Amino acid sequence: MSGKAVGRRADYRWFVTLSTRWMDNDVYGHVNNVQHYSFFDTGVARFLLEAGMFGDNALDLETVTEVGLVVETTCRYYAPLAFPDTVTVGLRCARLGGSSIRYEIGLFRNEDDSACAEGHFIHVYVHRHEQSKTVPVPERLRAAVTAKLLAPA
Amino acid sequence: MSGKAVGRRADYRWFVTLSTRWMDNDVYGHVNNVQHYSFFDTGVARFLLEAGMFGDNALDLETVTEVGLVVETTCRYYAPLAFPDTVTVGLRCARLGGSSIRYEIGLFRNEDDSACAEGHFIHVYVHRHEQSKTVPVPERLRAAVTAKLLAPA
Amino acid sequence: MSGKAVGRRADYRWFVTLSTRWMDNDVYGHVNNVQHYSFFDTGVARFLLEAGMFGDNALDLETVTEVGLVVETTCRYYAPLAFPDTVTVGLRCARLGGSSIRYEIGLFRNEDDSACAEGHFIHVYVHRHEQSKTVPVPERLRAAVTAKLLAPA
Amino acid sequence: MSGKAVGRRADYRWFVTLSTRWMDNDVYGHVNNVQHYSFFDTGVARFLLEAGMFGDNALDLETVTEVGLVVETTCRYYAPLAFPDTVTVGLRCARLGGSSIRYEIGLFRNEDDSACAEGHFIHVYVHRHEQSKTVPVPERLRAAVTAKLLAPA
Repeated sequence: MSGKAVGRRADYRWFVTLSTRWMDNDVYGHVNNVQHYSFFDTGVARFLLEAGMFGDNALDLETVTEVGLVVETTCRYYAPLAFPDTVTVGLRCARLGGSSIRYEIGLFRNEDDSACAEGHFIHVYVHRHEQSKTVPVPERLRAAVTAKLLAPA
Repeated sequence: MSGKAVGRRADYRWFVTLSTRWMDNDVYGHVNNVQHYSFFDTGVARFLLEAGMFGDNALDLETVTEVGLVVETTCRYYAPLAFPDTVTVGLRCARLGGSSIRYEIGLFRNEDDSACAEGHFIHVYVHRHEQSKTVPVPERLRAAVTAKLLAPA
Repeated sequence: MSGKAVGRRADYRWFVTLSTRWMDNDVYGHVNNVQHYSFFDTGVARFLLEAGMFGDNALDLETVTEVGLVVETTCRYYAPLAFPDTVTVGLRCARLGGSSIRYEIGLFRNEDDSACAEGHFIHVYVHRHEQSKTVPVPERLRAAVTAKLLAPA
Repeated sequence: MSGKAVGRRADYRWFVTLSTRWMDNDVYGHVNNVQHYSFFDTGVARFLLEAGMFGDNALDLETVTEVGLVVETTCRYYAPLAFPDTVTVGLRCARLGGSSIRYEIGLFRNEDDSACAEGHFIHVYVHRHEQSKTVPVPERLRAAVTAKLLAPA
């Protein structure tokens, strides 16, 4: 579709493995295209959690003042996923801007080395209670992205 | 984000209105970014249904031999949606190819005239039981897209 | 299954109509059993919203100090639902206790008069930030339930 | 609520562990009550898959002639789950009838020994293409349930 080669695990830098659910499959017997974004969304959230971005305790959102607003997502689908497959989400950072981060994401079915889907996910950081106001990417996150997601190994 | 103007209802040609659900809202109190694709997916399916693409009776899939495989989707998020908003999905066709269709989609919150999100959704037509084999866009669908979705009014 | 007669619209007192989504259907081509609870959950939330239980503005949760904790739900499935059906959720209150409310819920497919599924949903009211502490059902809600949901018309 | 003691892992006989997703959490920051049924549904499906009930290959539904229709489900919620918790689904069979199976299900948060939620799930076996006609529980399944789910260890 895009003329780009299909990504492999080595093209990504950080991984988390998720389970599929019976109801992810639609009438055609494959994971519905919508659910791929749930894997993207959950993969990014797990990375942010590891980076301490939801407070010192897991999901202690009361203490969070800067949040990442999702402004753009995209997915290219190469091959089907189906329950009961596991899905490994691979992340890398393609652009770490002043107030935004572009995550690139690959989904890997079971033990496959080639991605079954790839896309991106752009967060813009804003003040939690005044969301029209962009803020710098928090330092803690900038450090985590730099250490763990920038440039393929 | 993209430098393009935000779409309005007049930029789209076919519409269907959907309800939001309590669980669409995530911890930030807005419809989660994943659900936007469920509105896209449902909007396209409602159009295909109206075009008779699921058999003569509603969702009579046994008789369907050609299916649209989703190969790419994307969404740009401009403003939040939240339960109990209604969502009007607007469709237009940006490219009607030999075996593929690119739908452009706008989501409109309640009575708003400006889109709160826009994106696209590309279907490639394949043989239902031999999905590596592309087939021409079915004639009935080509006629419906031409009549109802091509070129803004 | 239960020996009880299947409910009809006249057995319920308050109604809201919701749309189904393409991905609600599972591999058998019917709305998956899980989604029925999403209709229950959304029906109750729409009633609570109408009763002013989410703050003076829609979903102004910051101002809410008492929340309904779901402690028990159940559903009996009589007949299938399938996208693109509409679902009308009917509610009545079977028991309005000191700190709990038992909603009885019927789901009606399109224009059908007989329920395709019925169940219940029990809320216990607790202090929002101290959820082990039950509180009385808020007066505003008690009044709304008494006026609109108690005893079939 | 029910006067019954909260179940522990030892009360169940077969287990599968699933991941939570970011969007499972609702505005209150806990997994929404609807998703518990997705864990139930997926747990039962994983058991059926292990028992060979979806064909000789994973989810080879074309060859399946008898399907379990869900006729009743219920859940009691004892304590919250929240992303990024893992959920272990425990199953046992409470009643293996001529054409129906009643699964009892416990959900266990992370390493907890006490269930955070418990419920049941009743399947009635019917002919796949003639769903008003009940059929005996398939022998292969009867054997698997007898061996793996009947009576707590």
